[in-house]
Amino acid sequence: MEYIASRENPKIKYACKLAASAALRAEADAFFAEGPRLCAELAKSCRARAVYMTADAMARWPALAGAEVAAQISEPAAQKLAGVQAHQGVFAIFDTPTPAPARFATAKRLLALEKVQDPGNVGTLLRSAAAFGFDMVVLGPGCADPFAPKTLRASVGAAGRIPLWPVADLPAALTTLRGRGVTCLAAALYNSKPLSALQGGQPGGLCLVVGNEGQGLTDETVAACDLAVRIPMTDQVESLNAGVAGSVLLWHFRGID
Amino acid sequence: MEYIASRENPKIKYACKLAASAALRAEADAFFAEGPRLCAELAKSCRARAVYMTADAMARWPALAGAEVAAQISEPAAQKLAGVQAHQGVFAIFDTPTPAPARFATAKRLLALEKVQDPGNVGTLLRSAAAFGFDMVVLGPGCADPFAPKTLRASVGAAGRIPLWPVADLPAALTTLRGRGVTCLAAALYNSKPLSALQGGQPGGLCLVVGNEGQGLTDETVAACDLAVRIPMTDQVESLNAGVAGSVLLWHFRGID
Repeated sequence: MEYIASRENPKIKYACKLAASAALRAEADAFFAEGPRLCAELAKSCRARAVYMTADAMARWPALAGAEVAAQISEPAAQKLAGVQAHQGVFAIFDTPTPAPARFATAKRLLALEKVQDPGNVGTLLRSAAAFGFDMVVLGPGCADPFAPKTLRASVGAAGRIPLWPVADLPAALTTLRGRGVTCLAAALYNSKPLSALQGGQPGGLCLVVGNEGQGLTDETVAACDLAVRIPMTDQVESLNAGVAGSVLLWHFRGID
Repeated sequence: MEYIASRENPKIKYACKLAASAALRAEADAFFAEGPRLCAELAKSCRARAVYMTADAMARWPALAGAEVAAQISEPAAQKLAGVQAHQGVFAIFDTPTPAPARFATAKRLLALEKVQDPGNVGTLLRSAAAFGFDMVVLGPGCADPFAPKTLRASVGAAGRIPLWPVADLPAALTTLRGRGVTCLAAALYNSKPLSALQGGQPGGLCLVVGNEGQGLTDETVAACDLAVRIPMTDQVESLNAGVAGSVLLWHFRGID
């Protein structure tokens, strides 16, 4: 097995760049992940290109260390990969999953995000979508990168499980979905129906559309939907946490019982 | 109006201590908050003991600046209050709200937390509880302080709105609640009924009990409840974010339509 001692090793430097740069992730069709739990989750659904572990970590998580592409790294190299934070000595590079185009044409329960900027919120929503039986996430412009380290952490690997469909024009994508009978529901605080007024009954499929933390959805995107819905609330708060609001909607329209 | 120039002013130093020390907050029955939105929200339900604002902030948020207890502070004093982060020049000290004991005896829709350690999760759950018509939160041992700065930020002021009942012995508190007809439901992944099997029908009231992010509830607390419930999930994820899971349960048992 390869042993990497130096912080300046080109493989270590490349992994750090993958963690930091969305452009490099897109170019390489690969992403970087850290931590035994996250890497083990991702390994179930994504092909690992490289696994970097300290000797201590290899003894502790032998299944991960058993990967063909595993290499042992020194403590200084691990600290370089981890950046400033404490680490558990487990790092990996995975192929970015690319769903077959046929899936876009058949998905029946979709979540679409527009300008959801906080990586924690995007990760939380991917995790909830996978948990509640959604089969695809449409990523409109302006969303946090699902394969950035903070997003991956919040999604706990769900980004590797649920097919992602990045689109440049969200209203156009929604129009396509409606063309094949999918009901598109915009989450909106105003000019919307309370959630309790809706229940199932979308035989052609359903796409839930969630917008920016502060501004919500653009008018153009709301106009491209069939209907706008809101979560009823008391007057004790002005709004919900964005990850919570989206997750309550995902739960309401869940594909499991 | 008083003007405070020095970072070393005793009032500024006291406010910093309130932000940092749960013990001092308990002793003083007061807490520190930062930011125009949060302070304005808290001012609706809590008495302000002091409001500290920069000249710029006073011009921008005149309603807050109009408080009788408002004082103007210098930029260095504001930076001291804000710690390392960027700030908007608005800080305040509020009385910690103390609910009348009679409320403990009459609350009908309660959330109880046990060892929920992350301030973001406690804040999110307070916010969701207030949004979904819960009328009291029971805080068992080991929870993040609801009046710590991070928790306040996540709750966006809900800690000032919803009555809080800190208890040293959570199973005993649940037994008291059951004694007056409140149904206590433990959130638990195992040995539990799926949420969809339960719907309303707790005429004597309901207390939802949520545990630690990693370990869940203690056996003793589960045993003190009437029933354990879980959120059904696909096998695509191992768990949900704790703030999300609690919020989905709060939504399911909401007191609004």
